Amino acid sequence: MWKDRRLCDLLEIDHPIIQAPMAGASTPEMAIAAANAGAMGSLGCAMQTSGAVQADMRRVRSGTNRAVNLNFFVHTAPRTNPERAVAAQNRLAHWYDQLDAGDIPAAVETHYPFDAEMCDAVARLAPKAVSFHFGLPHSAMIKTLKAEGIVILSSATSVSEARFLEENGADAIIAQGYEAGGHSGWFLPRGAAEVAGTMALVPRIVDAVSVPVIAAGGIADGRGIAAALMLGAAGVQIGTAFLASPESSASDTHKRSLLAASGDDTMMSKAFSGRHARTLVNKYASEMDKVDDWPDFPVMNTLTGPLRKASAKADSGDAIALWSGQAVGLIRATSTADVISQLVAQTEAILAR
Amino acid sequence: MWKDRRLCDLLEIDHPIIQAPMAGASTPEMAIAAANAGAMGSLGCAMQTSGAVQADMRRVRSGTNRAVNLNFFVHTAPRTNPERAVAAQNRLAHWYDQLDAGDIPAAVETHYPFDAEMCDAVARLAPKAVSFHFGLPHSAMIKTLKAEGIVILSSATSVSEARFLEENGADAIIAQGYEAGGHSGWFLPRGAAEVAGTMALVPRIVDAVSVPVIAAGGIADGRGIAAALMLGAAGVQIGTAFLASPESSASDTHKRSLLAASGDDTMMSKAFSGRHARTLVNKYASEMDKVDDWPDFPVMNTLTGPLRKASAKADSGDAIALWSGQAVGLIRATSTADVISQLVAQTEAILAR
Repeated sequence: MWKDRRLCDLLEIDHPIIQAPMAGASTPEMAIAAANAGAMGSLGCAMQTSGAVQADMRRVRSGTNRAVNLNFFVHTAPRTNPERAVAAQNRLAHWYDQLDAGDIPAAVETHYPFDAEMCDAVARLAPKAVSFHFGLPHSAMIKTLKAEGIVILSSATSVSEARFLEENGADAIIAQGYEAGGHSGWFLPRGAAEVAGTMALVPRIVDAVSVPVIAAGGIADGRGIAAALMLGAAGVQIGTAFLASPESSASDTHKRSLLAASGDDTMMSKAFSGRHARTLVNKYASEMDKVDDWPDFPVMNTLTGPLRKASAKADSGDAIALWSGQAVGLIRATSTADVISQLVAQTEAILAR
Repeated sequence: MWKDRRLCDLLEIDHPIIQAPMAGASTPEMAIAAANAGAMGSLGCAMQTSGAVQADMRRVRSGTNRAVNLNFFVHTAPRTNPERAVAAQNRLAHWYDQLDAGDIPAAVETHYPFDAEMCDAVARLAPKAVSFHFGLPHSAMIKTLKAEGIVILSSATSVSEARFLEENGADAIIAQGYEAGGHSGWFLPRGAAEVAGTMALVPRIVDAVSVPVIAAGGIADGRGIAAALMLGAAGVQIGTAFLASPESSASDTHKRSLLAASGDDTMMSKAFSGRHARTLVNKYASEMDKVDDWPDFPVMNTLTGPLRKASAKADSGDAIALWSGQAVGLIRATSTADVISQLVAQTEAILAR
């Protein structure tokens, strides 16, 4: 049914649909189900050691021999800023008290960088694709991965970023619009300018690069997929539609909040991780909305970690990062395989009109 | 070529495309050209007396007998707030000095409300449609307009607003996404939540109401129109694509800035009018980005009026409201008629694939 086969051929998948990697919510089971349904399954490896990545990949391989994608964050190293750390800890104190979340952690990085060891481990695992967020790693690493036949993907939130990614080795570009849930992939300076919505971003990136463009942000049903194809995208990356599935490791509180949400109730917040990420509006994010001087990503992630866990444990959505895109009002609590088969059937019906 | 005829039938137009009303930039000549090209031409009447509206409508009638739309703002009356006015005047002072813009005006409203006199005048003019921004006027006025066979349109930036508009008499709803240039039509409380992008907003509003939905925001070529139709929209409203046309009364500085822009260089700013409106990033808007306590709309519009004129006169884009949507990177400086014929041809080609 797919007339444009660029992404299917590049990634060896039946449907040009990527199940978005969502560190903390996507699981090997989700990736297996997505891959076996003919889409691209993804693992979000941003907060994992190379050992954990290898273990997850073994689980995936036990369930599917189809294409999978490993995602890594390639953020710049956080600056040490004791003043910001203390200010953040002070702002968080009453939340830690209220949710009985224990001591606020020290301001240290707990993410694992995409370093030489991780790169070598990934090259040995040889997934079909590796996607990056916040840019690309060093060109030598891109070369190492490509030597294993691994397809390189990365997210662009502007035409400039798309051009940068193409020039630096990306084989396809994820055009991530403003609507997208979780972390914005934004990585080049933009002053006061805002990230464009998917409708405006995709055709401009399609005009600017020659590699296939994957639309992301605000897409959760066949209408969105058909629309993305009209804009010139070769395929889509979808996250939120999988977040309430049984294969998602999002907390029950998070899943319930998603199923009750409309999509007119999301906001960008830096208050969970130190970088802009889209969440459902809740008490914590609203309270912190105007604060802009948080410690750098991902140190801020460390500082809020126990608070978010305590909030989930108390079955309160008040202080969880309720990651969600703006199409959340369209999702249902069905299995990953069902989500994909419905997306495909809906798109086919719309395109056949 | 249009399989979905709902909007064409409702508005008596050949193509389901509305040339957006843009107070200060759209002109009777633009409306005439759009209408004669088979689209819906619109006049932005927000800052006009009823006499001026009648004069513009006479000009339009001398050039076309096809359907036209008159647009009005139905904002709540601004509160008197001398403290905010003084604070704003202080913030503006160095800009008035720098651009030799004369005295800062007094903090008064200079818009014309959609009152009984205006309503009667519009009912007598009997345009095919009247569109409102920021909600709807009193139900008695809606009744007066409908008694003359006038179609009522209004903008929604959320599902709640769309439902409100349908329940209060709108015959079609403009789903205005985050990407849209100029003033956001936002009118119901939304806390910290952000306006959704067009891709996420349109299908959710389509699911929520039974009247036709018109997609607006981020659409500037046939790809965007085809995408909007896939999302379930009955048609589109397009503004930015007409702003650089010879029929636009935008300043030359504004037009040049639009033609040089990518769409990754816009921002929402309250600093021109007191309400959120999308502009190209410039020095004034960037400087005022974090200021939130401006006098109410449209008093702030009055305060910046001479400054904006002086900036345009000096051929400087530094302090003009450079209204623009996020698809601006797709536009060209062709005539209104050419824009429409290209939009139609592009859409036809894409849908025929």
